[in-house]
Amino acid sequence: MLQVSKQEGTYLYRQVIDLIAENIDAGALRPGDRLPSLRKMSQTAGVSIPTVRQAYIELERQRRVESRPQSGFYVRHVAANDIVLPTPSYEGEPIPLTCRTLMERVYNGINNPDLVPLGIANPTMARPAAKALHRAMKRVMARAENRSLGYSATLGEPALRRQIAYQYLDTTGVQVDPEHIGITNGGQEALLLALKAVASEGDIIAVETPTYHGLLELIDSLDMLAIEIETCPEEGVTISELERTLQTHDVKACMFSTTLSNPLGVTMPEKDRRKMVDVLEKYDTILIEDDVYGDLRFDGVRPVPAQFLGGKAHIITCGSFSKTAAPGYRIGWVVTDEYIERISQLKRAFSCTSGLLQQLTLADFLASGDYTRHLKALRPVLKRNADRLAALVAEHFPPQTRTSKPVGGSVLWLELPGGVDAENLFDEAIEAGISIAPGRIFSPCSCYANFLRLSFGHPWTEHTENAMRWLGNRVTEIAAQSG
Amino acid sequence: MLQVSKQEGTYLYRQVIDLIAENIDAGALRPGDRLPSLRKMSQTAGVSIPTVRQAYIELERQRRVESRPQSGFYVRHVAANDIVLPTPSYEGEPIPLTCRTLMERVYNGINNPDLVPLGIANPTMARPAAKALHRAMKRVMARAENRSLGYSATLGEPALRRQIAYQYLDTTGVQVDPEHIGITNGGQEALLLALKAVASEGDIIAVETPTYHGLLELIDSLDMLAIEIETCPEEGVTISELERTLQTHDVKACMFSTTLSNPLGVTMPEKDRRKMVDVLEKYDTILIEDDVYGDLRFDGVRPVPAQFLGGKAHIITCGSFSKTAAPGYRIGWVVTDEYIERISQLKRAFSCTSGLLQQLTLADFLASGDYTRHLKALRPVLKRNADRLAALVAEHFPPQTRTSKPVGGSVLWLELPGGVDAENLFDEAIEAGISIAPGRIFSPCSCYANFLRLSFGHPWTEHTENAMRWLGNRVTEIAAQSG
Repeated sequence: MLQVSKQEGTYLYRQVIDLIAENIDAGALRPGDRLPSLRKMSQTAGVSIPTVRQAYIELERQRRVESRPQSGFYVRHVAANDIVLPTPSYEGEPIPLTCRTLMERVYNGINNPDLVPLGIANPTMARPAAKALHRAMKRVMARAENRSLGYSATLGEPALRRQIAYQYLDTTGVQVDPEHIGITNGGQEALLLALKAVASEGDIIAVETPTYHGLLELIDSLDMLAIEIETCPEEGVTISELERTLQTHDVKACMFSTTLSNPLGVTMPEKDRRKMVDVLEKYDTILIEDDVYGDLRFDGVRPVPAQFLGGKAHIITCGSFSKTAAPGYRIGWVVTDEYIERISQLKRAFSCTSGLLQQLTLADFLASGDYTRHLKALRPVLKRNADRLAALVAEHFPPQTRTSKPVGGSVLWLELPGGVDAENLFDEAIEAGISIAPGRIFSPCSCYANFLRLSFGHPWTEHTENAMRWLGNRVTEIAAQSG
Repeated sequence: MLQVSKQEGTYLYRQVIDLIAENIDAGALRPGDRLPSLRKMSQTAGVSIPTVRQAYIELERQRRVESRPQSGFYVRHVAANDIVLPTPSYEGEPIPLTCRTLMERVYNGINNPDLVPLGIANPTMARPAAKALHRAMKRVMARAENRSLGYSATLGEPALRRQIAYQYLDTTGVQVDPEHIGITNGGQEALLLALKAVASEGDIIAVETPTYHGLLELIDSLDMLAIEIETCPEEGVTISELERTLQTHDVKACMFSTTLSNPLGVTMPEKDRRKMVDVLEKYDTILIEDDVYGDLRFDGVRPVPAQFLGGKAHIITCGSFSKTAAPGYRIGWVVTDEYIERISQLKRAFSCTSGLLQQLTLADFLASGDYTRHLKALRPVLKRNADRLAALVAEHFPPQTRTSKPVGGSVLWLELPGGVDAENLFDEAIEAGISIAPGRIFSPCSCYANFLRLSFGHPWTEHTENAMRWLGNRVTEIAAQSG
């Protein structure tokens, strides 16, 4: 089957590529199959070893195969899968949260260091910046010995606010006034302050579906109600659905993640961002833009937050170093001109200030260029982990399993065959020493019962592979029983 | 005048003491006057120099005189003054906050490093524990290099929760279950989580008068209403007034500082704590006990928080390392059995977790004994600063000025002559390079217009003395104009 015809006018290595691709498409080579070795392929196809190598590398670049160290090249799995939206399952009405107890159990799993951490979204653990951050912190300790223990200004250390502004300029070309940036205790407090600044008890808040569970807990804790808006895995929030909801409900604010949403991983294209801003302006609805993953696209391209696209909608953008540098530092921020005074009052009332030593350390870390270098090194590690995780899904999970195709961040979203209840799977996985995030926590209603979020933001070990094998086998068993 | 009669049966040094005391009481020796030198007094009184020295030291212990290095002994000022409660000025009804703008200006003053910091309550700056804390942090960085950057458990690092429990045992003999301690972003977030856990929008919350301005901002930010309870400078909240208020108003919770309240500096005696707990139980009202200054009494005695006195009232106690170790670490805690699950949910929703590196560092700092050593060294520095500040008030402020008598902490509460508006004084002081805390911010209504809080929790310099001289002179001028 593997023979190259040595056609005129075509590079030999391209013919090797076509040959492999045809075999994959025809099902003769299936996901997970090992390609013939370079030597074998060279003999079979009658071309040189360097030609075969060139072909395999190009196939890898095209993400059709992947190399595994000391093992060879394998057919990748992910290309054939595609996520399907569970359109009928969400309510389309504002409803209170029903899964608090489950969330509690998921957090207990996350907090247990003995479990394989497939349940937590913590990208930097895949390649921690500990050495550079510790160095920066020691410099700060030496430079500001007593001061670094003291209170920061309410809205944060000016040096860090300037560095964050510079970072926006550097990566998106947008000029942000440091005075419009307020430092918070991580992204979660940024969301809290933004939401409390614009909405009150009983207000309706629109969210994506599925959405980040921390948003749902926040909305519920402030005695507000979440309403879900249909969200497409390619373009994010469906703008027509957003408009329909704003027409029919008195929505006070939207809380959307515009880049690398969690758990779906979708980045809203700029044309949709502009449409969204127009619709928000039309209905005078405020947007709280969750942008904590913006720096983590594998391609390094930083989309411009909706706030900076020039519309007149009221937007507060929330950022954080938790996903990109150090979650334990608890340093995030809000960007807003309109609400900065109100947020300053709330910040003081709710937590006084944020940690000064960490702020000074991050300011130094950014100013030194170490942050940019760290991101450059982190992204390919995350990408490689993403590919490996997807390959393991394809290898061990039932063929009906559908997955998102992460282009950044640290999570994979899976739809399991219908009969598989991810909450039960969660309980069994905990017993087996594995933490996962069942789909139910990503919606206020009980949809996503057969969905799952898996993380690839941690150091890759044999435990990861074993855990994925266990999960895949168990899902296969359950699917077979219920099918 | 200064002669000792050498009576039978009385130590000579006691007779010297009586002689000086009589002269002070009669006005012959006035506050600020220098006592005769040891040699002079020895000659005049006809007793030995060691006897005079013994007398002077005892007078200093009694706080009637003070020694100044290389200068001698001086009559203290503070003894003759006494704080007077402005009973007619508070409303006795739940009212919304009226001084947000002023608070904003006070914080701007506090945040300006170029001003003499008489406006901020930051005791540790008088003797920072930077070296010991930095050493502890470096140990943690070496020991938990990557882990220290990660997420803490929602309610905090178990090692720190155990150390805090041990600290309660060590200083008060009370056994606290570490599982009932939840780590927060400083004392302010502890107060937020406690209040949100037990009360809702529109609820009435009882506070001392005067009270910590951060409580008022918090209550207002959660759309609740504060009602003031008469507070006596000797015993704290007047229990009969508390009961009267609980009878007449539907008070959801009380937020009281039981030890070294801010700004009054009062510690509620144990018998009153017990009475308070009984009253709260009778009216089924919850207490949020602000105990962030508990470790800072000059005498080193740690009063037992009301929660641990054995009553059945619902109490959440809030503590912090901000006033005793490092405000910039933003590490505080709640102690509660009853509400710990609710607080865990709120903590996750509001700020996810608290900083792990700081938690690990404080756990190390406490376990090593450095925290206890630090407190032992800090208390006498604060006491000495308190004495010096009171002496400067007596020296430079009008004689009608009345002050609190701090027995711990880092603030002095002053009542200025009636015509002096402390808000105007605040504005003038800022212009003169001095930050102060005008009385108005310590009450939701506009009482305490002629009150002032001054801090002695910072390194003592000539700037402090110059600032106090400027303030005293200015107050004297204004009082003279308005008198």
